[in-house]
This record gives sequence, structure tokens and C-alpha cells, in this order.
Amino acid sequence: MSKNELTIHVPKSDCPRVVIIGGGFAGLRLAQRIVRKNFQVVMLDQHNYHTFQPLLYQVATAGLEPDSIAGPLRQHISERKNFLFRLMKVDRIDHEKKHVVTSVGELEYDYLVIATGSKTNYFGNNAIEENAFPLKKIPQALNLRSQILQNFEKAVMTKDLEERERLLNVVIVGGGPTGVELAGALAELRGYILPKDYPELNFRRMKISLIEGTKRLLGAMHERLSARAEKDLRKMGVNVVLNTFVNGFDGKEAVLSNGMKLETRTLIWAAGVMGNLVEGLPEESIAHSRYLVDEFNEVKHVKDVFAIGDVALMVTGDMPKGHPMMAPIAIQQGEQLAKNLVCREAGKPMKPYEYWDKGSMATIGRNKAVVQMPSGLRFGGVFAWFVWMFVHLLYIIGFKNKFVVFANWFWNYLTYDRGNRLIIRRYKKDENVQDIDNPLL
Amino acid sequence: MSKNELTIHVPKSDCPRVVIIGGGFAGLRLAQRIVRKNFQVVMLDQHNYHTFQPLLYQVATAGLEPDSIAGPLRQHISERKNFLFRLMKVDRIDHEKKHVVTSVGELEYDYLVIATGSKTNYFGNNAIEENAFPLKKIPQALNLRSQILQNFEKAVMTKDLEERERLLNVVIVGGGPTGVELAGALAELRGYILPKDYPELNFRRMKISLIEGTKRLLGAMHERLSARAEKDLRKMGVNVVLNTFVNGFDGKEAVLSNGMKLETRTLIWAAGVMGNLVEGLPEESIAHSRYLVDEFNEVKHVKDVFAIGDVALMVTGDMPKGHPMMAPIAIQQGEQLAKNLVCREAGKPMKPYEYWDKGSMATIGRNKAVVQMPSGLRFGGVFAWFVWMFVHLLYIIGFKNKFVVFANWFWNYLTYDRGNRLIIRRYKKDENVQDIDNPLL
Repeated sequence: MSKNELTIHVPKSDCPRVVIIGGGFAGLRLAQRIVRKNFQVVMLDQHNYHTFQPLLYQVATAGLEPDSIAGPLRQHISERKNFLFRLMKVDRIDHEKKHVVTSVGELEYDYLVIATGSKTNYFGNNAIEENAFPLKKIPQALNLRSQILQNFEKAVMTKDLEERERLLNVVIVGGGPTGVELAGALAELRGYILPKDYPELNFRRMKISLIEGTKRLLGAMHERLSARAEKDLRKMGVNVVLNTFVNGFDGKEAVLSNGMKLETRTLIWAAGVMGNLVEGLPEESIAHSRYLVDEFNEVKHVKDVFAIGDVALMVTGDMPKGHPMMAPIAIQQGEQLAKNLVCREAGKPMKPYEYWDKGSMATIGRNKAVVQMPSGLRFGGVFAWFVWMFVHLLYIIGFKNKFVVFANWFWNYLTYDRGNRLIIRRYKKDENVQDIDNPLL
Repeated sequence: MSKNELTIHVPKSDCPRVVIIGGGFAGLRLAQRIVRKNFQVVMLDQHNYHTFQPLLYQVATAGLEPDSIAGPLRQHISERKNFLFRLMKVDRIDHEKKHVVTSVGELEYDYLVIATGSKTNYFGNNAIEENAFPLKKIPQALNLRSQILQNFEKAVMTKDLEERERLLNVVIVGGGPTGVELAGALAELRGYILPKDYPELNFRRMKISLIEGTKRLLGAMHERLSARAEKDLRKMGVNVVLNTFVNGFDGKEAVLSNGMKLETRTLIWAAGVMGNLVEGLPEESIAHSRYLVDEFNEVKHVKDVFAIGDVALMVTGDMPKGHPMMAPIAIQQGEQLAKNLVCREAGKPMKPYEYWDKGSMATIGRNKAVVQMPSGLRFGGVFAWFVWMFVHLLYIIGFKNKFVVFANWFWNYLTYDRGNRLIIRRYKKDENVQDIDNPLL
């Protein structure tokens, strides 16, 4: 379909129009809260679904199906009369005309909310960007799953023994929650499932490495929990390397800052994220690839433009570097902005966003997790694992998804199995476009 | 990875080697039964999973996730010591040397079993082949799902009212079980779900047409059941057109043999299948694009080569045109051949395959199905619908899949919902390769 046949135009209504770019945690929560409050809500996203990102790693390691951790955005909004969704990329914001500009026309707004989240940050290393696997979106998780499964199939058939090890090995860069959870899930695959599937292969030769640049894993948590996670991972046979960076990766070999080399076909990059900016706002509104916002999440130096979630940088006395880029904060800011837009329309004063620490947690494997509560309470082990599961089930959106994820976990726990080892879409470099800007064009 | 690095070579064993091409109903059942009987079993397939094809239409219409109706082939074989799976296409059979030839080398066999099933038959109409959607494989079902959902998103945004209808309309060609079940599922989507998702669109303008060349739907069943299915579909608003062929489709407009034209962007071709032949067997072993086999499923005019399931043509007194291309027959032939290969090795006489009619059935929608039992008993309505569900759950392989499919159906029944309306992989013509010959190369 050509551009000329489509239009971004939406009918006018009597209510002020809020255009929300992005249906992640922040944008979706805002839309859910504001849609009944006499606003016309137009949401623009490049996907028609919301992704529960904290469980992406389980999709990548064949523990969950993608549909279980995602839901159609249209369905997540209960009142659809004042809600318009458009599967579309925003090319540029024209904040003076109060327009968003797309390849199929311009759309006026009364309020614009940028909730575009974050994307993988390779810190300018092109070789790594070209060859590594990121893990921020469902298609990326499926690519990684296909890559891993295809490599096992190749390993069975290769004549070259060095290549066989390269196909089996996995290197994970970044010892935050994603890296730790991935390393644990892969170690469990190697321990319980792969040897049964591939009796021809010797999985003791499969090396799973986790590379972290600082002196400990899970840097945002207490040192005791970092030590616990490291101990657990080492016990599961993960090669944890601290105080080390990955300087290069050509698709076959990762070069570490300590001079070490790791042979692998699969390097997963979970070492950094950056705000997902849209063109068009002035330079002075941006710092550290995020939008500078005031305490009401309004972007500085422009009018009627807000930013919430990962892409917003709110500098406060407590948080001189802004808030961490995490789901709970995105949800809180979406909720607060919904209230504030109602106030703004009513001519009442808005209320500043107040950060409410919800703690943090990471799972390492079966019966193994670490939890840090906002009260300062911290613990690991079986109980932490149950807390981790409970909280994730609580936050995943939609009753059906809660049920399906729970049923899968229960099944996997009982059987030591991961049922979703299907290569439905083969991964081939340069063939699977990972970021489709405009799926309809 | 280049061809030179991979090899099809497998280690020799003391047992005779059975090479099975294809992990569908026939090949999988044979492998499951023979793997404990002192044979080395090598299975070759272009996918690493078994597909439960009778429910593909539910994947296409967002009722089920693909993983629910498929399972990893390696996992479906309980005894994996004598079982070798290779994700690989067979290019040619060299029946004189008793080799299968692949792009990564040749593999010797003692017995070869061709269980390659069937593929869509366009009867030589290239324009239709190029523009229509087939529905024989999971990637095809996902392409169709993406196409339908993308078209709704485009319909919301198009300026051209004629184009909007073209985007909403669906034409299904072929009034067999697949066509009937698809038409019913789409009519339910239109009735219960789409108007809620897209309040902007008028779904009374969405036309679902089912075109059948003969004088009735479900030609393999009793006339009373055909009439019942037709009545039910018409009540659900499906435009059923009988005694009519589709002569052409350019991607925008279907031209029928009665001169009528139907505007649509989505034409699903369920009007014919043909055997999926492999190169290399002599002409005289083939008839009507299937392999001519004797009553033991051994291919005529060659030695130690068998064909089972859809690709086998066994002409008997009762079945002068061969057996219908259906799952129960494939399963029965796989089972029988497992027994016969044991006999053959032991020097005992083999037993001829005997067709055991299991009846046939089709579901039309919520509480609506038709069932024809082998006893001659036939019925429609709610009870038939329960029988249909029970039988499908019984035959779908793997306890987990049974459970997940059941849970989904229960959910969809209670809520009138279909949860899987995600466009994870966008469909774009010529971009989504549907048949990947060698996923590893």
C-alpha cells in the first residue's frame, strides 16, 4: 500500500486531544487512566501490542510463548469510544505548530506525551551493534531463540570441532537483572533439557559467560545480594567475569578488555540502554539521550509536551541523575500525569511526581532469586523466588496472560521442561528486520 | 554457515537404518513406534516441530498461539538414543545406491520412508498461486493472521472507501473442512471481537465469502450435514457461493466462473492439495502426484522405499482412487508400517494396511459443528461441537498442548474473546519467505 492511500487524520472531538507516542508501561497506564476523563486519546505505536519486557528473557530461552507476555493495545483500553490507535511511526514533532509529523500526514495535538521508552545502547561500538543480539522487543527475543536453537541443530551436523563449541557457547554482556536472568535460564536449559534433546552433543563443552564491567552483578542492589547471585550462577556453571568490558565482537569471537577471547556465535548485549528520542525537540530539552522534564513530567523549553517513563529525565534533589529506567517508575509517572492533565484542563495546580521505591529483584533459576524490598529488607532463595513470581504475575497485564504464564511456570517447574523449542521463524542475519518503522507501508 | 562446514553423515549402528523424510502425522507415528525395535531412525524435516494441521485455521484467526498446536520433534520421541533428527531438506533420492542426497552430502539407508505429506494445489493457476494465501504450515497461518490484522489497521487509516471494503473483505476458496472452519471462525471474529477493537469501522460492510466448485459444502460428508453447515454459515452472515470456481485473483479482485467479481485483498486458497513429491523415483512409481504403493505401503517399482500418509496412493478394491488425504489414515499407515518393518527384518510376512474409517467432522462456530461417525450416525449442533473438541484434544500430541488448547478454548468460550491479535511478524508480500528449504544454510 502506498503512502498516498493512508492518512493519520482522525476526527475532531469536543474534548482536548492527547497524543501518546508509545504503548509501553508509561503510555498504556496513562491512556487507561485518562480515556474516561473527557480527553480524546490518540495512541501511536509501531507495534499493535504492549510488551511485558521483564519476561522477554523467558521468551528468548523457550520458557514462554511471545503471546503470553504481550497483549493487543486496543484490547487493554476498556473504553474505546474516545481511544484511537494508529499503527504508525512518528517521524518528527513540530512543537511550534503542535503537530506530530508522520509519513502519512500530520496530526494536531493539545497535549503530546512522549512515552517511547528506551533502546539498546552499544556506546558507539558498530561491530558489536552489527553482530550482537539485543533483547528489548519480542521480535528480538524470537530471533535470539531461533539463533540458539539453530546453532544446536548446526552443532549436531558440523564437521569442525572448534566451530561446534563456538555454536554452543553463549556470551552475555551486562550483569544487570536481564543478564543475570538470561544466564540462569540458559544454564537451566543446558542442565535439564538440551542433553535429552541432543544426546549426540556434549553439553559440558557449552560455555555460558556473563561479562560485567563493574566489580559486581546487580549493581543496583545490595552487595550481599550481588554476592548471592554470583555464587548461585557459578554453582550452575556460569562463567562470571567481573571488572571487564567487551571491546569487540565479529560474530565469531568476543574480545574482552582483559585481553581474553571468547569463541561464540551468540553474544547477547544487555549492557546498556538509552532513551528512544523522537526528532524535533530543541537541543536544550535533551540530556543524556533523555528528555529533561520538570517535576510534572513536562518537557523543558517546550509547551504542552510531556515525557514519561524511561525517556524522561527528571532531576531532583534525591535523584541528581534522574530516576532509574524501570517499569514501576514508568507506571507511576503515567498515573500521575493522568491526574495532572485533568488538573491542567480544570485550571487547577498540578502535583509533582513523587518517586515511590518498589524495591528490585532478579531470578536466577529454579528456587533461586534475590529480592530487595524498599524497607531495606533483603533475602534470597526459595522465598525470594516465590515473591519474584508473585510480583511478575501481579504486574503482567490481562487475566488471561497471568493465567497462561502461571500455567507455563507450573508446568516447567513440575517437568523441568521448556515446551517452546520451535524454530518457527528462522533467524538469518540481515534477513529478519528487527525494527520495522512503519509496518503498514 | 556454508555448506562445506555441515554434513548429513550420521554414525553407523548395528541396527538397520530407517530414514524417514517428514515429521507429520505419518512419519512421527512411525518413528515413535519403531525407535525401540532395534532400528536406527534418522528423521529429516525442514522444520524442527510437528504441526497439528487440523487446528491451523485457529492460529490464522488469532484463536490459538502457534506453539499450542506444535511440538518439537525431538521431544516427541521418548527414546532418543536410536533417534537422530536432522533439520534438512532432501534434494533427491538415489534409490539404486540406496542414498538420500542433500546439499550437505549423502546418507545411506536400509529402508527409506517418504512421509512428506501434501502441499497446496493451485491447479496451474500462477496468478492465484502468487497472490493467494495457502494454509498448510504454521508460518503460512501466521502470515495470514498478520495480513488480516494489518488490513484492519490500514482500513482505519485509508482515505479510499472502496479500498476500505477491499481490506475488510475475505474470500475463501474451497468448501471442505478447512474452508468451512475458517469461514465460521472469521464470522465469529467479525461478530464478537472486531467491532469492539475498531469502533471506527462498520463491520456490517465486511464480507466473508466461501466459494465452492461443487453443489455442496463438505463433499465428503452426508448431504444432510452439508446442508446444515451451509445453513449455519449463512445464518452467521457468510456469503456461500456453490457450483462456482475462482478463475483469477490479482491481489485486489477475485474473478469467479459465473462472471461475478469479489473485491478483496485477502483470498485464502483451500481448494486443493497434492502430494509433496521428492525428486528421484521413476515415473512409473508416481500417479496423480502421489507415490503408487502396494498394500504394505511399499512404493512400486523400487526396493526398500515406502510412502505413507497423504503422499501415498494405495489403490484397493474399496478405494479405486486411493485413500482420502487425512490425518487418521496417515497415523494408521505409520503404525502399520512400524509393525511391518519389524516383520520384514525378522523374515516374517508383512500384513496389508486396512483402512479404518474414523468418521469425519467440522466445526462451524460456537456450539456448532457437524459429525459423521463411521457407524453412519450423524449429528450437528452443540453435542457435535463437544465431540469435535474432545476428538481434537485427544489427537493433539503432548499433554501440555492438550492442556493449553483446552484452556484457550475454555477462555474464548467464556469471554467471546480471542487473545492473540498480535502482529509480531508483519506480513509483506515477497518479504516473508514461506517455504525455507534449508533453514540452516
